[in-house]
Amino acid sequence: MMKTYTLPRLIINLKNVRSNYRELCKRSNGTTVGAVVKDDSYGCGCADVVEALVQEGCTTFFVDYAPCGVIVRQKAPQADIYCLQSLGLDTLDEIKQAHLIPVLGSLEDLQIFKQANLPDIPLAINIETGLNRLGFRPSDIQTLSSEDRAAVKLCLSHLACSSYTYHPLNGQQLQRFAEMKDIFPNAKFTLGASDAFQLGPRYYFDIIRAGANLYGIDTFETNRDYLKQAMHVQAAVLQIADLPTGESVSYGATYKATSPRKIAIIGIGYGDGLPRSLSNGKGKVFYEGHEIPILGRICMDNIICDITDVPNLQTGVLVDVLNDTYTADDMGIDAGTIGYEIISTFGKNKRFKRIVIR
Amino acid sequence: MMKTYTLPRLIINLKNVRSNYRELCKRSNGTTVGAVVKDDSYGCGCADVVEALVQEGCTTFFVDYAPCGVIVRQKAPQADIYCLQSLGLDTLDEIKQAHLIPVLGSLEDLQIFKQANLPDIPLAINIETGLNRLGFRPSDIQTLSSEDRAAVKLCLSHLACSSYTYHPLNGQQLQRFAEMKDIFPNAKFTLGASDAFQLGPRYYFDIIRAGANLYGIDTFETNRDYLKQAMHVQAAVLQIADLPTGESVSYGATYKATSPRKIAIIGIGYGDGLPRSLSNGKGKVFYEGHEIPILGRICMDNIICDITDVPNLQTGVLVDVLNDTYTADDMGIDAGTIGYEIISTFGKNKRFKRIVIR
Repeated sequence: MMKTYTLPRLIINLKNVRSNYRELCKRSNGTTVGAVVKDDSYGCGCADVVEALVQEGCTTFFVDYAPCGVIVRQKAPQADIYCLQSLGLDTLDEIKQAHLIPVLGSLEDLQIFKQANLPDIPLAINIETGLNRLGFRPSDIQTLSSEDRAAVKLCLSHLACSSYTYHPLNGQQLQRFAEMKDIFPNAKFTLGASDAFQLGPRYYFDIIRAGANLYGIDTFETNRDYLKQAMHVQAAVLQIADLPTGESVSYGATYKATSPRKIAIIGIGYGDGLPRSLSNGKGKVFYEGHEIPILGRICMDNIICDITDVPNLQTGVLVDVLNDTYTADDMGIDAGTIGYEIISTFGKNKRFKRIVIR
Repeated sequence: MMKTYTLPRLIINLKNVRSNYRELCKRSNGTTVGAVVKDDSYGCGCADVVEALVQEGCTTFFVDYAPCGVIVRQKAPQADIYCLQSLGLDTLDEIKQAHLIPVLGSLEDLQIFKQANLPDIPLAINIETGLNRLGFRPSDIQTLSSEDRAAVKLCLSHLACSSYTYHPLNGQQLQRFAEMKDIFPNAKFTLGASDAFQLGPRYYFDIIRAGANLYGIDTFETNRDYLKQAMHVQAAVLQIADLPTGESVSYGATYKATSPRKIAIIGIGYGDGLPRSLSNGKGKVFYEGHEIPILGRICMDNIICDITDVPNLQTGVLVDVLNDTYTADDMGIDAGTIGYEIISTFGKNKRFKRIVIR
């Protein structure tokens, strides 16, 4: 009696996340490495990731909104927790209760912050230097009183083109940001995210915000072998069948067999977060070193794969969808997107049997 | 003090799901309409959707795997619950405990089913007629004993090209499936999913499996005004700013302003399930009748939109990402995919403030 597995599996390896954090700290020239754990830690599970990083001594966390900060606070009672999406009336109570630090992006945010009367929460601001996203514009900064300027404890900005080492905007943003040092004399400064490690120490300032690299995402094609994958995905072979010549596969009959093929029907689909854009030959899975192409369209629950050249595959075994050698970055390229979207999407799906390696 | 909202919102309208179910039942010529609630009801929340449909008298549900069936059983104690992904050793206990009916796809499945000794659970089989996914192949059917054939209570098959009204495979699958009536004399038959309502009564058999249409998805471009949207998505304007000529927007600086623009930074991104493929002019949001284009690349947490022509937009208000006139189907077309993937992906994300209209 075969068919041990039918459910797909999502494996979060916290040992790898911890290893990534340690490796990044080694390369930071002593600069504080903060952890970006927004978007449920890019789908890897915020509570689990924070718990793991606290054990590595991480005391600075960046979240999106206050509800994520509340989760971090439970695992990191002493940490500085910054909310990158600032604050609004709908998150003010959580900001107060969990003692979160909203990174204010505008004069309006500053007004809300002041009116909310949060004397114990330090003033942190986002400074727009070229991404044209959230942040104080130059004209906003000019209107700040000297009292406000002196009260700012953290200045943050974010690079637009940091994954392109030689993009001229990097240097421009660096210069604009460095000019803020005179304006905010009492603030710590943070500019670079994971890519700062590639751009070099001029981008480090006081805190490097490590996000992507923590999870094994590497937007540079540099084969940094010290980065390990936080997420593996596996799926089960539900059925093996013959596909006769002339028969088509899946919706729209976009693949038609021109010779007899052996196919495996595998239990994963876009309902689990496998991008549908991997349909029609763009996607693949792996088994014992064999690369197994996906035929036709990806379904909500299934893919149909060509296993003609994989003699040993049997029903009930697991194939690799993401592993150490076919990473989120690799799938991102095949799917026409980036590794960030890959893990963020897989990570949310409840249908997986979720396994956390601590 | 403005900025009421910062968190994105996902609104599930169960009244609309119920209305869709009623409308489909009206059009079924008295044929039973079963509900496909797999993949967490396409992201709309399985427990909520089943509860709503039970109130409409639905007694037949189709899930993917047994864990989803367990959720359905809690809300529908008397229902027939079919597991489309069949069974394996990892789901056998849940099949037994929740009295689920696995739709067997192979002789191996049948063997597992028999060895598991489930005398109270009726025999249901999936018959492969042209999709080349899960299901008994013709050669499998030939080997079935007359006892097994007589024991089969449900025969299921699935169309590959049902959204193309005149695709020749529809007729071929219909014929292959109809031929099974003599082989399985005691079975009920179910072939068509939502598209059966467009293909016509020959495709109805004993049970129509309504999935997509329940949630307002319509793969036919027929403007069926009786289908209502199960899912709305909204996002908050976090900041409004000026974009000077020559400045670029978002990662990679792919959009550059050739004239002064007014931009809104909005709190939604691919981390919420907004497809990153909507970057660079493909995507849009809506506010009071205005269509607001997304500039540059979609970020994990934010989009940057051109609101130069929307004078009344203010921070803290909500814009529509999916609504009744820009539906999941519409976004699917813009994103190069289908509405199914759109709602399935949005529906899983925890960052939303989730509102359920009952």
